[in-house]
Amino acid sequence: MNKPEATVRILEKISKVNDVIASENRSDFRARRLSVVNVLGSPGSGKTTLIAATAERLGGRSVAVIEGDVAGRVDADFLASKGLPAVQINTGGGCHLDAGMVREAMRELAAHDGAIVFVENVGNLICTAGYDLGERVRVLALSTPEGDDKPYKYPGIFAGAEVLLITKSDLAPYVGFDAEALKERARSLNPDLVIFEVCARSGEGMDAWRDWLAARCGEE
Amino acid sequence: MNKPEATVRILEKISKVNDVIASENRSDFRARRLSVVNVLGSPGSGKTTLIAATAERLGGRSVAVIEGDVAGRVDADFLASKGLPAVQINTGGGCHLDAGMVREAMRELAAHDGAIVFVENVGNLICTAGYDLGERVRVLALSTPEGDDKPYKYPGIFAGAEVLLITKSDLAPYVGFDAEALKERARSLNPDLVIFEVCARSGEGMDAWRDWLAARCGEE
Repeated sequence: MNKPEATVRILEKISKVNDVIASENRSDFRARRLSVVNVLGSPGSGKTTLIAATAERLGGRSVAVIEGDVAGRVDADFLASKGLPAVQINTGGGCHLDAGMVREAMRELAAHDGAIVFVENVGNLICTAGYDLGERVRVLALSTPEGDDKPYKYPGIFAGAEVLLITKSDLAPYVGFDAEALKERARSLNPDLVIFEVCARSGEGMDAWRDWLAARCGEE
Repeated sequence: MNKPEATVRILEKISKVNDVIASENRSDFRARRLSVVNVLGSPGSGKTTLIAATAERLGGRSVAVIEGDVAGRVDADFLASKGLPAVQINTGGGCHLDAGMVREAMRELAAHDGAIVFVENVGNLICTAGYDLGERVRVLALSTPEGDDKPYKYPGIFAGAEVLLITKSDLAPYVGFDAEALKERARSLNPDLVIFEVCARSGEGMDAWRDWLAARCGEE
């Protein structure tokens, strides 16, 4: 079934409205010296754990989190329990965050000027790729149990990310994950993609990723 | 950003068109004694491997597969290499299959009358839940590395499934997955949910699931 042309036109209009708000967000974030990091990935790819473990390693740097989910506030509660200021967005049935949702959440978020603000997007490799939130950095988390064939199936999200974090690297031997094959496939879609293999649990690769992020997000 | 009301109205219309085609599909499938099984789950939850391993255990029963992906034909090629008739649907950027896509694919698929036809939906826990394809059985595959908290975050897909397959059960001890907690959470949304813990690789639980499916899909 193809979508009627009228819908396509209206969806294009929504997308343009999103781009305008994203651009306003970017100016607002710059004025407050906020480094916003949009974290994309499948359900269960380890985004929340990764954010908590990265925040822990960022030392004196101020960190806050916006949590996107269809429903519930499991992740925001978890992050708050780690001492991180967190605001939960529930999308109802929506499969992605948009720039307007992030603007609203930012008003409630107790983020210090100069902070790194992680935005955990809804767990999804498709819809999230199409929406600019005004972020500085777009990170894609892919966990080893998801398989090394994912770039072929979800090319848009690999093409649009600045950094790929291969998460749960400790499980790679159990699931037959070929990291080199994955990297080659991802870079065929996005030659400049920065890639780290990380394991939040064991700490493997986390310092290299933290150093890259801290440099990319400037220093206070 | 809220969607303009006009879009919501048009999307409702699309959804109604889908329901009409799904209902026609259901009649067509019944006329051909086809048992169509709509398989939902995250990217990398093990849907393709599960379908291949289930087909292998279905003995003399005729099986065919419709593969849904945003792009590529990795899975259809894999299934064809296992001797299964398979047709690939690419949705472009679309995050779910719809009844019209399945109707088209069914015309190309070399499925015998009386066959079990698995439809592997796009990897996604959100959009796929909203589209009836005319299937007889709706299966949700959730892999243990995704975590036991998923029902709270994606309630719609748990509420709408008839069967939940907890896949990659062999990884549960490595990822701290609590199967009993997951079952309780899933059944709080869907008290009649049938649940199997399976591992396609080791074969654990696969016979029980196969027996249930064969009974649910009648016998030729």
